[in-house]
Amino acid sequence: MNMEIKTVKEVCKSAKEASGGLGIMSAGQKNRILEITADKLISHTEEILAANERDMKAGREAGLGEGLLDRLSLDKKRVEAMASGIRAVASLPDPVGEITETFTRPNGLVISKVRVPMGVCGIIYEARPNVTADAFAICFKSGNACVLKGGSAAIHSNTAIAAAIKEGIRSAGADPDVLGFIESTDRESSYELMKLREYIDVLIPRGSASLINSVVENSIIPVIETGTGNCHIFVDESADPEMAVSIIVNAKTQRVGVCNACESLLVHRNISETAVPMIAKALLAHNVEIYADERARAICPNLKAASEDDWGREYLDYKISLKLVNDTDEAISHINRYSTGHSESIITKDEANAERFLREVDSACVYVNASTRFTDGGEFGFGAEIGISTQKLHARGPMGLKELTSYKYVIRGNGQIRP
Amino acid sequence: MNMEIKTVKEVCKSAKEASGGLGIMSAGQKNRILEITADKLISHTEEILAANERDMKAGREAGLGEGLLDRLSLDKKRVEAMASGIRAVASLPDPVGEITETFTRPNGLVISKVRVPMGVCGIIYEARPNVTADAFAICFKSGNACVLKGGSAAIHSNTAIAAAIKEGIRSAGADPDVLGFIESTDRESSYELMKLREYIDVLIPRGSASLINSVVENSIIPVIETGTGNCHIFVDESADPEMAVSIIVNAKTQRVGVCNACESLLVHRNISETAVPMIAKALLAHNVEIYADERARAICPNLKAASEDDWGREYLDYKISLKLVNDTDEAISHINRYSTGHSESIITKDEANAERFLREVDSACVYVNASTRFTDGGEFGFGAEIGISTQKLHARGPMGLKELTSYKYVIRGNGQIRP
Repeated sequence: MNMEIKTVKEVCKSAKEASGGLGIMSAGQKNRILEITADKLISHTEEILAANERDMKAGREAGLGEGLLDRLSLDKKRVEAMASGIRAVASLPDPVGEITETFTRPNGLVISKVRVPMGVCGIIYEARPNVTADAFAICFKSGNACVLKGGSAAIHSNTAIAAAIKEGIRSAGADPDVLGFIESTDRESSYELMKLREYIDVLIPRGSASLINSVVENSIIPVIETGTGNCHIFVDESADPEMAVSIIVNAKTQRVGVCNACESLLVHRNISETAVPMIAKALLAHNVEIYADERARAICPNLKAASEDDWGREYLDYKISLKLVNDTDEAISHINRYSTGHSESIITKDEANAERFLREVDSACVYVNASTRFTDGGEFGFGAEIGISTQKLHARGPMGLKELTSYKYVIRGNGQIRP
Repeated sequence: MNMEIKTVKEVCKSAKEASGGLGIMSAGQKNRILEITADKLISHTEEILAANERDMKAGREAGLGEGLLDRLSLDKKRVEAMASGIRAVASLPDPVGEITETFTRPNGLVISKVRVPMGVCGIIYEARPNVTADAFAICFKSGNACVLKGGSAAIHSNTAIAAAIKEGIRSAGADPDVLGFIESTDRESSYELMKLREYIDVLIPRGSASLINSVVENSIIPVIETGTGNCHIFVDESADPEMAVSIIVNAKTQRVGVCNACESLLVHRNISETAVPMIAKALLAHNVEIYADERARAICPNLKAASEDDWGREYLDYKISLKLVNDTDEAISHINRYSTGHSESIITKDEANAERFLREVDSACVYVNASTRFTDGGEFGFGAEIGISTQKLHARGPMGLKELTSYKYVIRGNGQIRP
């Protein structure tokens, strides 16, 4: 598994050059290559686990927390899961070449809008090594070359995984440069990558808010911002209290470290006397700390006092904020002020309030009577996901294969000139 | 027409605040307001022409060329044209609220993808004052507030036009801050605007390549790159020579200063002995200078010699480059190397070559047997156009009302939680 060391620019240039051939590959060719790369991951399990052990050792020595070490660690089962992830992407329909619209102009020109790959996708990510395989597979199936830059904690694992995949691509007779892998993990390489607009068509950062902000501020390549989720649930006056409690507990505690977990509750004041104690009891039973405003604390004095900062906070922890509101309007304007535009839900039996909430809350995913945890490519039926966009340009919400494509206009004439 | 002077940040903040109300306005409300702003433009014709005369005087004193002065100048007819432009946009279908997809998940969640406005669009543009009215109307009809920053040459005209429109919005009972107008014309204001990501959702530069590059390099707001067009026409071996000449003359000379004009010709070597003299004769009759490679000059020695630089040049003038190629493959790779990704056309009777060209040329608009001059929102039937995108993220090619929208997912449940 010898890989020659290339500069960031060379990796990106090679990926751009390889992207043309990949962009016009048939679905059958792409699927066959994906299957072979999955096989190679399995057959190189030993090398991958040895590389991972080096990362784990360095991580333990550096004093990484248990949670981070768990995300970093690989075993035979996790390598198998990566391989089946690649096979699952191979089984998805190919979005490339889909004709989404055709219209004929009065002058006889026939104009079709055809789905095409973006070209080269750059992905900058942090600890989890499985992203290396996932991101490659999704980009490849959507006809895109990719340039991957992972974090230093997982560098040996990522390098071994990328080498196995490249070996698979090469042995299938295709150009391994469709997977560009940046081996240096310093910040300078990231900054260099963010300026290579001539080679990279879109840059997707995956990881902490500070990583994402750094990419947004420094990249001259178009960026899709992903991930940060200060998600709200509004319990309206007419909510079924048991449904509200069940959804809140699920959205907060089913998994706390994820972007679609609920971070803030709004409760209609007219039901607060009964709803707040019910919700508090259920959440406290799950060890969730509640940071509440004064009106809620007047009902449940054992809640912690919220400060202004709490309304904008993404805890990613067993913590949640809680505020009473006077009506749906106040709930909507509070959300539009403090939310990160990810996912919000209203629990209500009132159809007019539900429709107003769905219409006026300016977030990627707006729910009525369901948990915010459903904002996910898998749960939406996309089969695979490269991230969840919280910006409005290009893609919003869960991004699957289609969201990694662009389009071109194909125009067929018989000599038309513009009068 | 008194307008209080606001800072760039204040203008953008007010536009963001006003955008929420505009985003949920009905088509009827928006159309009524657009009609009233068109009326106001007409009723303020005198002030607008007086302001324009100040710009024209300053322009003449600064020694602006005839072309620029013509683009700057307004008269009664041009003000009327601006007003009818606004009315034309009012008559277009409203894209906001359109449900583009609905699907039901096995757990009963009903997920709809709904078209919503972007929020606030920033437009940075150069000399032509009519852009002030056009850009406002297109943004407004697609539910977006806008922040406009025009060039210094047209500042008095732009200010008068914006004031008349704002008066119209106010008199219709709506919030005039949906049109943010930046009165300062210095570069610092542009740089300040490009950093206000919290208020502006997308930034669209319209103008010269240097303006566009400056925005791409300095903006932390998502940008849609527009405009630069090094458009190619490839005359294949099987081309009908008369059709080729007619399309080439149209694409080069019908209007030379526009981004969809043809700037470079590729001719199959097997027909070059007859085709090159025919094409040269027709173009020279239209005073077009031809910069040709050695092989073409061996056939027509009176052509000028092309240098390597000519292949990448957008002349925007009565000039064109010409090169012989050995086959369709060479034409495609030359185009993918030198083109700006705007519009390219193949003239051919060979269906296989046409399909390969359409598939493999990586540009926004790819044509067979038609002039590149059709790349235009009006010619595509979009009714209005905010620019032509040459990037792949979000929108590609002519951008109409739909291309100024994003989407949200609306999810309706009855208590679903994630297992």
